[in-house]
Amino acid sequence: MQEHGGDIYTNDGLFDFSANINPLGPGEKVMKALQESILKVTAYPDPLCRKLRESAAKRESVPPDYIVCGNGAADLIYTLVLAEKPKQALLCTPSFSEYEKALRTVGCKIRFHKKREEDHFTLTSRYLEELTGDLDLVFLCSPDNPTGQCIDEILLREIIERCEKNGIRLVLDECFFDFTEDAPWIHHEFFVKDHRMLFLLRAFTKMFSIPGVRSGYGVCSDTALLDRMKEARQPWPVSIPAQEAGVAALKDDLLPAATRLLIAEERRHLMEEFGRLGIRYYPADANYILFYSEIDWYEEMKQEGFLIRDCCNYRGLGKGYYRIAVKGREDNERLLAAFRRILKRYKGEGTWQSRL
Amino acid sequence: MQEHGGDIYTNDGLFDFSANINPLGPGEKVMKALQESILKVTAYPDPLCRKLRESAAKRESVPPDYIVCGNGAADLIYTLVLAEKPKQALLCTPSFSEYEKALRTVGCKIRFHKKREEDHFTLTSRYLEELTGDLDLVFLCSPDNPTGQCIDEILLREIIERCEKNGIRLVLDECFFDFTEDAPWIHHEFFVKDHRMLFLLRAFTKMFSIPGVRSGYGVCSDTALLDRMKEARQPWPVSIPAQEAGVAALKDDLLPAATRLLIAEERRHLMEEFGRLGIRYYPADANYILFYSEIDWYEEMKQEGFLIRDCCNYRGLGKGYYRIAVKGREDNERLLAAFRRILKRYKGEGTWQSRL
Repeated sequence: MQEHGGDIYTNDGLFDFSANINPLGPGEKVMKALQESILKVTAYPDPLCRKLRESAAKRESVPPDYIVCGNGAADLIYTLVLAEKPKQALLCTPSFSEYEKALRTVGCKIRFHKKREEDHFTLTSRYLEELTGDLDLVFLCSPDNPTGQCIDEILLREIIERCEKNGIRLVLDECFFDFTEDAPWIHHEFFVKDHRMLFLLRAFTKMFSIPGVRSGYGVCSDTALLDRMKEARQPWPVSIPAQEAGVAALKDDLLPAATRLLIAEERRHLMEEFGRLGIRYYPADANYILFYSEIDWYEEMKQEGFLIRDCCNYRGLGKGYYRIAVKGREDNERLLAAFRRILKRYKGEGTWQSRL
Repeated sequence: MQEHGGDIYTNDGLFDFSANINPLGPGEKVMKALQESILKVTAYPDPLCRKLRESAAKRESVPPDYIVCGNGAADLIYTLVLAEKPKQALLCTPSFSEYEKALRTVGCKIRFHKKREEDHFTLTSRYLEELTGDLDLVFLCSPDNPTGQCIDEILLREIIERCEKNGIRLVLDECFFDFTEDAPWIHHEFFVKDHRMLFLLRAFTKMFSIPGVRSGYGVCSDTALLDRMKEARQPWPVSIPAQEAGVAALKDDLLPAATRLLIAEERRHLMEEFGRLGIRYYPADANYILFYSEIDWYEEMKQEGFLIRDCCNYRGLGKGYYRIAVKGREDNERLLAAFRRILKRYKGEGTWQSRL
């Protein structure tokens, strides 16, 4: 069973559509910074990540004191939970599995809010009723993983207000937000200043295709929380390559802009083709698409030489759900050709329509 | 106040004798591996660190299942504490400050064993009496930091046995052990198989001069503990550069051998010169030396253009203790020249003898 996408080590030789990484690659600026960083590794990393925090602060229009850096965004999830030690948390299903795993490390009680298939797994206003005073912490992900859907803007503002009012730490994971078409116009960091309970999570991993480097950051105006996070971990969590790659990524505006155009077009193309093929997919805003099939699509695709994400181990999904990454046209066409071959095989058996 | 050595970011432009890094640098093998690793970072790191664990297992003569990798050895200290959640621990003073900081994250009660100045801060058999059944965990460091002294072999075996018998997790931090003259002949990993409570901590940071990369590992036969550690943290704690550098380091036997020869000679040279200058130093086995002076040596050395480690914030030491790294002859001579200039100034004032 896949615990996460992108495990090319267990699945050597397969064409990887399971990890949601930018098909355009890291870009020249980040690669150059990484190469140069290797010459600096005989020093300890800056424990305070000063340069990276200043760059991120500029990007987010907040003071550097509001920024905390991590060994990838996933590191910050665990560090925040350890610093907060919440007693009661609320998670959505389906969503990214690391939130639950992190909360288990401090023995936190977890309530689950089930997003419904009939709502295409989007978050609805039903969620607001769940934000009661007994909660210490909630995780939300927008666009969510593996559904690829953003939280509605008006609903999100209500959630932010209600969490602030009820003293609930709201961790808003926006690691894939940069891939959405709305990214240039929507800036939740503007809420940070007036909402101490809001913690925004950012990563360089996905947009800059550097999951192997481990670099991410958080934005929060509750500097006492950021101080507690510093106490909850080692002094040098962020390597020199990770700090330097992050600084370079924050200087690169062209790559995200070009990526958004590419992904928007390719996402539409894939969804159209899925529609044509009769694949039950969930409309997505991100660089990945969730779909459902009663055919064992993971195994079939493996036979075709592709690694996709089997989502059966996501709480709230189960057997039949799969996720693919959105890549460039040529790669996407290769994926679609494999989809067509699989469907042809099942059509031949006369069973495919009932199994889709 | 310095929290750790090696903070060249706060102390820009000073010649750094505060971090205990191999003066011979990373060596060609590790540098080549790091440079090549940059081309692989568009993939996620192997969550299981398979290659690195296999290489480390071979070096330590244990099964790969006994190896856990970390984002530097410091990461493993925190992860182990979070996985164990000890209620009562025993620490030595003075010692590396991160043990206490990690234990605080889980609210562990801490008892302190005070190593005495009159014993030159070496661990004595008094320590054995402290290993009572109420303890869940102890940290020991050999050679210790900042004293540079190894635990006596016979005493250490007794400690390992007593911890095993009393069910006390013994974390033996040997991150600097490779620098000692005994390293080629003493192998505590042989105890691991029969002593499930023993956890050995190793780092590539110091011997291979790559603190900026963050790579270390632990050795323990209690695989249930290693599984709990995996649950207590993110799936990708060790970056691709860190995994690749580690594999390359484990293939390089020449650099550690050459380093030991150099450090042994230079350590002796520095200690002899310290003796000649009337500096009260503590005989060391590692690549750093602790000494005492009533002169504000940290500030004086800063004036001379050197960064040294002011050890005043080590629990059990206090004002007047300083640590310097052992480097190559030319650098050491520069350090000694600065020492002589400082002493000359105080001699001139006719006060130095009373203040050393």
